[in-house]
Amino acid sequence: MKVLIAGLGLIGGSLALALRDRGLAQEILGVERNEEHAAEALRLGLADRIVPFDEGVTEAGLIVLATPVDTIPLLAVKALNRVNARQVVMDVGSIKGELCEVISMHANRGRFVAAHPMWGTEYSGPQAARRGAFAGRSVVLCEPERSDDDALRCVEGIFRALEAPIVRMDPEEHDLHAAYVSHISHITSFALANTVLEKEREERHIFDLAGGGFESTVRLAKSSAATWVPIFLRNKFNVLDVLREHIHQLQLLRRMIERDDSEGLAEAIRRANTIQKIIR
Amino acid sequence: MKVLIAGLGLIGGSLALALRDRGLAQEILGVERNEEHAAEALRLGLADRIVPFDEGVTEAGLIVLATPVDTIPLLAVKALNRVNARQVVMDVGSIKGELCEVISMHANRGRFVAAHPMWGTEYSGPQAARRGAFAGRSVVLCEPERSDDDALRCVEGIFRALEAPIVRMDPEEHDLHAAYVSHISHITSFALANTVLEKEREERHIFDLAGGGFESTVRLAKSSAATWVPIFLRNKFNVLDVLREHIHQLQLLRRMIERDDSEGLAEAIRRANTIQKIIR
Repeated sequence: MKVLIAGLGLIGGSLALALRDRGLAQEILGVERNEEHAAEALRLGLADRIVPFDEGVTEAGLIVLATPVDTIPLLAVKALNRVNARQVVMDVGSIKGELCEVISMHANRGRFVAAHPMWGTEYSGPQAARRGAFAGRSVVLCEPERSDDDALRCVEGIFRALEAPIVRMDPEEHDLHAAYVSHISHITSFALANTVLEKEREERHIFDLAGGGFESTVRLAKSSAATWVPIFLRNKFNVLDVLREHIHQLQLLRRMIERDDSEGLAEAIRRANTIQKIIR
Repeated sequence: MKVLIAGLGLIGGSLALALRDRGLAQEILGVERNEEHAAEALRLGLADRIVPFDEGVTEAGLIVLATPVDTIPLLAVKALNRVNARQVVMDVGSIKGELCEVISMHANRGRFVAAHPMWGTEYSGPQAARRGAFAGRSVVLCEPERSDDDALRCVEGIFRALEAPIVRMDPEEHDLHAAYVSHISHITSFALANTVLEKEREERHIFDLAGGGFESTVRLAKSSAATWVPIFLRNKFNVLDVLREHIHQLQLLRRMIERDDSEGLAEAIRRANTIQKIIR
């Protein structure tokens, strides 16, 4: 199969490596506006050629949209405008509500499969692409019943080959849960990094004392603005909802510390501890 | 050297393993009130014998206090009351101000070395003890000038053998920076776990979607109340100070999202990104 990947960054690049490693792509065409990234993607073997989007859409059997989420709905429409009844278009973006709404009445809606693989790191750009990504991580498919059977089979086959368990969700449901579980973690981490940078003026101390758990909570704060600003703004209402709750939870802890309420604190911590039953 | 370790949990137990592996302890005596933990510590080889505190203090050349921080100052005084001029007492606790003040006028102050190795995990109890802990992580020594030369040499020798770089700090300075860098990470993580548990009623969704960075920010939420409630309360003013700033940073992000202020968000994220220059 000839595959076009628009956006050869963390997700698009890792998917390129995975498709090649599993023998699922004979040729990979890449779309990459940033010239440095384009050169790097070629050097890293993420794509065989860099092509203009329209040209790639005409050539490829599978078109993957892996650009920032604010650009995906329009690219989806442009791709669907050009595909024939055997080509498949999928995205790998973190937001699904707007996308699914935009393409809902498109004459070629059936050729589209909305996918969100729940894998990522704090790095971005072609050099962030990793072998073996996606394995063991869920991939969410939204409105699979609106995709043509063969298009859905193609995408499901890919994620099965990548050993990513498939989960089905409504787009609205997806965006809500993604805000609750994934997006809030990034906001917390950005805020924590800025808190420490604000309070701790001596970088040496951050470095010396960081062993106490700081790295893991602040890891996501290395994530790029280009990826995350569109996610926060396109998922605004869900993100604000969970952010309000998070600030509330911090205020609860703050009041308990102010009042030396050791029993209340212990109870809140024991409740937080129950998260270990859910995640490993 | 015969070593007494009071508290054979994550830190005390890992230190026991390290001392044995490096041949620094010929015999390890343990103090452990919890009977299950005592049995487990023996089974895991963290101690050769479990003894009452007073008895262990009389026997050991080095006495290590590795109990929750609210119990350390009193244990320090009790140990110093009993040691002779060749014995050394050290602690490995996360709070130093109160401890150093309590022992400041003790006739045997010189026998004490206040140490805080900047290593930990989210687990607790003897089964949390890890081989190779401490290596490459800083250890903070507080008021080393108030320790006798030989006592300081003994403790410095241990951490050098463990490959933990030694950093010196005032107790107040230590508590402030520990709040900024370590304690706030735990509060954030507890609050995040409770936020998600509050908003996300379907555990299945947390599990499916957790790939998006959630595990790393919430990892510390598995940490025990027995360890952390005393830390938050004993370091109350510093913890509240940094917690106020953290809530403020979250509110800034919230307002920018509310106003669709993409430039402000991008700037805040780029500022948070600078943390990667400081931590690896």
